[in-house]
Amino acid sequence: MTKPRFNPDLLTVPLYVAGRSIQEIREKYGLEKIVKLASNESPVGSSPLAIQAALEMMTEAHRYPGVGDVNLRRKLAARFGRGFTENNFLIGNGATDLLRMITQAFTFDGGNNVMADATFPMYRILTTTFSGESRIIPLLPNHRFDLDAMLAAIDDDTRIVFLCTPNNPTGMIITQSQFDYFMSRVPEHVIVVMDESYHDYVTDPSHAESLEYIEQGRNVIVLRSFSKASGLANLRVGYMVASAELTEYARHALLPFNTSDIALCAAAASIDDDEYNELQRKTVLNGRDYFESAFADLDLQAIPSQANFVAIVSPPLGSARLTELLLQRGFIVRELTTFGMKNAVRVSVGTMEENMAFAQALKLIFETEGVAA
Amino acid sequence: MTKPRFNPDLLTVPLYVAGRSIQEIREKYGLEKIVKLASNESPVGSSPLAIQAALEMMTEAHRYPGVGDVNLRRKLAARFGRGFTENNFLIGNGATDLLRMITQAFTFDGGNNVMADATFPMYRILTTTFSGESRIIPLLPNHRFDLDAMLAAIDDDTRIVFLCTPNNPTGMIITQSQFDYFMSRVPEHVIVVMDESYHDYVTDPSHAESLEYIEQGRNVIVLRSFSKASGLANLRVGYMVASAELTEYARHALLPFNTSDIALCAAAASIDDDEYNELQRKTVLNGRDYFESAFADLDLQAIPSQANFVAIVSPPLGSARLTELLLQRGFIVRELTTFGMKNAVRVSVGTMEENMAFAQALKLIFETEGVAA
Repeated sequence: MTKPRFNPDLLTVPLYVAGRSIQEIREKYGLEKIVKLASNESPVGSSPLAIQAALEMMTEAHRYPGVGDVNLRRKLAARFGRGFTENNFLIGNGATDLLRMITQAFTFDGGNNVMADATFPMYRILTTTFSGESRIIPLLPNHRFDLDAMLAAIDDDTRIVFLCTPNNPTGMIITQSQFDYFMSRVPEHVIVVMDESYHDYVTDPSHAESLEYIEQGRNVIVLRSFSKASGLANLRVGYMVASAELTEYARHALLPFNTSDIALCAAAASIDDDEYNELQRKTVLNGRDYFESAFADLDLQAIPSQANFVAIVSPPLGSARLTELLLQRGFIVRELTTFGMKNAVRVSVGTMEENMAFAQALKLIFETEGVAA
Repeated sequence: MTKPRFNPDLLTVPLYVAGRSIQEIREKYGLEKIVKLASNESPVGSSPLAIQAALEMMTEAHRYPGVGDVNLRRKLAARFGRGFTENNFLIGNGATDLLRMITQAFTFDGGNNVMADATFPMYRILTTTFSGESRIIPLLPNHRFDLDAMLAAIDDDTRIVFLCTPNNPTGMIITQSQFDYFMSRVPEHVIVVMDESYHDYVTDPSHAESLEYIEQGRNVIVLRSFSKASGLANLRVGYMVASAELTEYARHALLPFNTSDIALCAAAASIDDDEYNELQRKTVLNGRDYFESAFADLDLQAIPSQANFVAIVSPPLGSARLTELLLQRGFIVRELTTFGMKNAVRVSVGTMEENMAFAQALKLIFETEGVAA
């Protein structure tokens, strides 16, 4: 053997390519103003209390991270109640870091994981990374998870079922009755990951309450994030909630110092920022309502969303061409091929000014291109 | 099967336990002033230019990380010269994140990795995490790596040899002639990781120049860090340098958004902070010289260090008792059992005031305990 051995599974993992920056697009298209509605970021910036806490902690930038992790876990435990303690929480460098720990912890010696075709792509990518088999189940025609087909795909070697509610990129939720049905049938040896990164935007009272299953001692892991509703995507803080047993086990895959005290303090402070949290949520919910009616006026097929984005399926001109024409007018949206949806785009809710400008841009594009609007 | 399967290898990975915080120790011992010389942090805080850059970038805290990664890689490439481009660099959430990517990328289907007994513990921990075998080679009596024994431990299934220079926790370097000897004998299928996290403190001109081997296309991966010399431990930025081929392969194990733009901008700005870098290095080198003579005056056996810390072996009273007595006087140092050294402590270089107070505390402890000093 004269060369190092490369892992054939890892070689099939797609290399992450950063999205084009606002600066690049501004230069390429000679535009002054760019509106980025591509990454489900907060339309109203970050929690001011969070930023203040981060700035104060910057005096400790030369220190290794210290007690920020346990402090945040204790604060979350107090907030969640239900008898949870810090030992029910694990903090990640964004929810993706937790997905890495979970997938790594349960996918070994082969094994298979079950997930939808149109969902957050990291479930599939991480399964491949750890040499597991991804069993990919198409969404139902109404864009909901096909839970029966997911259950049918489970066998003795299934390790994880990845659910996402509201689902990225559709915005559809899993209801309580659907989740109860699923939980009454899923075998005990399977870990059920409920990715609830967009939980803060749910208004539908029928949304599944997954934490109750954790209280009951079931093998459910819930993921939440400070990236969206707290406006801290760049500080990289997500967390998982699970039984103390599963949490301790997943901690074996945690890297020391995976999060910064600066980010952890910001996240902890954001929890108390009622004013910001209210403004942020209201802005998103109003914008979502506006998109719903504006897209209906344009005869677009938008999936009813419970998240801070809306997916438009089969748009006139096709998703690739429409995305390009929007870029030329300074609007960045997400074409959904890599998310498992052909011919669809995802639009993040922005400020009302941005939302109105976006709807206007769509209208002008359809008029210019001679497509009925 | 009624329970989820746990990975037996992962279960043997020690759970990371955060060190006691300055606040905790202050309360426990009723002390006003605590001097932390335990984590090899910068004694002069962070680079002011880095902090300024971080503060400015905080307006983007609600955005996902963008071009900070490629900007830093380009800046490093320009600084390193040698024909390197951004494709020779990979950025990690601290060097530990890169060690995870490297170990994950090359340790699969079993395999063994070779490392010293007294070195950075993550090499061993990550090898176990990815179900590899750690072949642990004792240091020579002069505290240097036993390169012959390391070479002899290599077989056809060896994936990585982990070297660390200056080595944490001894502070000893690998010299050019030693490294040339090693590189002339190490088989081509083995990845040689040179962890150079403490590179900025080397003054010995005989120190190995590893980058030349990367230029020659050898399978050498060099790790560097912004944690120590730039004073940015809490912002979590490290990087690796390697051939474009190895770098691209390791990128398959990179998690999207593994670093924050805020941290990346700070790291990039710190490169230009000549004033801080000079002050930081001078403070450490002066402190290291001071420790050398102060420890000699106390008849302590200190290993000659090329890093920002000094290891004391076989101290009077023993390392555990000495560490406890130092704590009672407000000095936190690192007892080295978990670093593979029995009966040794590692002391980070602090400000000259802290260093003198530390030497004085040692003297008082030895006097109080009736040990010859």
